[in-house]
Amino acid sequence: MMTPEQLVRNVTAITGYTRHAGVDIVSAEAGRVTLSLDKKPELTQFNGFFHGGVVSGLADHAAGAAATTALPAGKIAVTVDLHVNFLSPASGNRLYAKARAVQVGSTICVVTVDMETDTSDGLKPCALASVTLRVVDMPAMSSKPLA
Amino acid sequence: MMTPEQLVRNVTAITGYTRHAGVDIVSAEAGRVTLSLDKKPELTQFNGFFHGGVVSGLADHAAGAAATTALPAGKIAVTVDLHVNFLSPASGNRLYAKARAVQVGSTICVVTVDMETDTSDGLKPCALASVTLRVVDMPAMSSKPLA
Amino acid sequence: MMTPEQLVRNVTAITGYTRHAGVDIVSAEAGRVTLSLDKKPELTQFNGFFHGGVVSGLADHAAGAAATTALPAGKIAVTVDLHVNFLSPASGNRLYAKARAVQVGSTICVVTVDMETDTSDGLKPCALASVTLRVVDMPAMSSKPLA
Amino acid sequence: MMTPEQLVRNVTAITGYTRHAGVDIVSAEAGRVTLSLDKKPELTQFNGFFHGGVVSGLADHAAGAAATTALPAGKIAVTVDLHVNFLSPASGNRLYAKARAVQVGSTICVVTVDMETDTSDGLKPCALASVTLRVVDMPAMSSKPLA
Repeated sequence: MMTPEQLVRNVTAITGYTRHAGVDIVSAEAGRVTLSLDKKPELTQFNGFFHGGVVSGLADHAAGAAATTALPAGKIAVTVDLHVNFLSPASGNRLYAKARAVQVGSTICVVTVDMETDTSDGLKPCALASVTLRVVDMPAMSSKPLA
Repeated sequence: MMTPEQLVRNVTAITGYTRHAGVDIVSAEAGRVTLSLDKKPELTQFNGFFHGGVVSGLADHAAGAAATTALPAGKIAVTVDLHVNFLSPASGNRLYAKARAVQVGSTICVVTVDMETDTSDGLKPCALASVTLRVVDMPAMSSKPLA
Repeated sequence: MMTPEQLVRNVTAITGYTRHAGVDIVSAEAGRVTLSLDKKPELTQFNGFFHGGVVSGLADHAAGAAATTALPAGKIAVTVDLHVNFLSPASGNRLYAKARAVQVGSTICVVTVDMETDTSDGLKPCALASVTLRVVDMPAMSSKPLA
Repeated sequence: MMTPEQLVRNVTAITGYTRHAGVDIVSAEAGRVTLSLDKKPELTQFNGFFHGGVVSGLADHAAGAAATTALPAGKIAVTVDLHVNFLSPASGNRLYAKARAVQVGSTICVVTVDMETDTSDGLKPCALASVTLRVVDMPAMSSKPLA
């Protein structure tokens, strides 16, 4: 039986997208997961800020992690519907996704995600996401810890 | 004065995210832009399909391109709000975003995007997006063609 | 076994909200339902146009009808997630919701809705909705025609 | 110069939809507005709970009120984009919308709304909404208190 942190570490490591982007796990407990990402040229939009697709992608992954850690072992939550409100440019050097499962059902989960970026005045909200996920059986390959 | 295709090519090239991902411009006319992306390990989720964040990111970029090509020169559309419905796994080797501006105003644009992936039976819908964008002045740097 | 039109008529009649608002069924086939609504003072916003809540409510009901008519008998689709883009004021005397199921699964359905209003130049789009629904067993009471 | 409560009372009273539905103002300060609504047959879905369209409509109105009270006098926020996650049936006799402006700009506002309903165990969340609004000039008619 994996801890929530092992589970999130595992899923993040076997996912090409998050492994290549360099997603870090800041904290993980059942239903609450915070991830972060350092800025790199391949994650930016034309003005050098984090691209909206990266903001959306980190929100999506954090939502999946928050829902899955709240589910019984052997189940995983996959995104059905992703909604992102962009509040301000993600202009810092690091992007944070703080996901919280607000509903965990046997077929549907709902997760909200606060996206923040670092500024000289501390962390600042840059986007909000609400994510609807569907509960499915976890594929066999991800049921063992990677390391 | 750039053609819609030059404009989309330009914005896609100066955007680190889309340049590194390898976004291709399939077609571009004012208000209608189709982009595509080949599968690579850094774009996949744990099961090897395109990651939801990549689907969202390509939808976002296509929406911005469709809106911007419909705006007067010197204006660019930036995303305020991105909503993606995931219909089925993006299991093909290529992902397409077909964006169409359904409203182009002086302050707000709305774009819908049909996301498709190639299968042995041809292109298949994998997601739908609706995107709200805000019209702002284009930064000086992107007003000249790159090549 | 009810026809799609009987089913939509039935659900619309036993629903207090739609019966009182005066929702009409324009057409109904499996997966495609068009509803309409005449303007009345209790449906308007401060400027006399259809209120956004009414636009959203008609979209929601049309989406449920389009999904439910595409499901096996005894199943009903209930809304999980409603997203509405408002394109222009619903300034006509009649509001139309044209719903089309784009995905019908055993647990999740996705429906898009084009909202239109009548103008002196014909029907004009006033909103777009995308709706995610969950499939549940239909309550016993609605399994017989009302009239 | 109206107080936030006068402003919300005013807009709610001149809006046919909210006046007929019987929307009450629980509290109103700049950027934060709570509204409520008693159950009536014309607000219900087939099972007697508040209809999703009513939940959406109250969220929409509360969002507009929360944004408008945070704007300079003479400006009003109109909805561009409404997204509602339905968490559980709104099964109580009273529905509450607690709206909070999370961004107030000169052209765009973003408001989140917690929807709750009364149960024998107290208030329970039944939906979440995130709403994008556009700032426009307030029509002349609503610039004076109604009573």
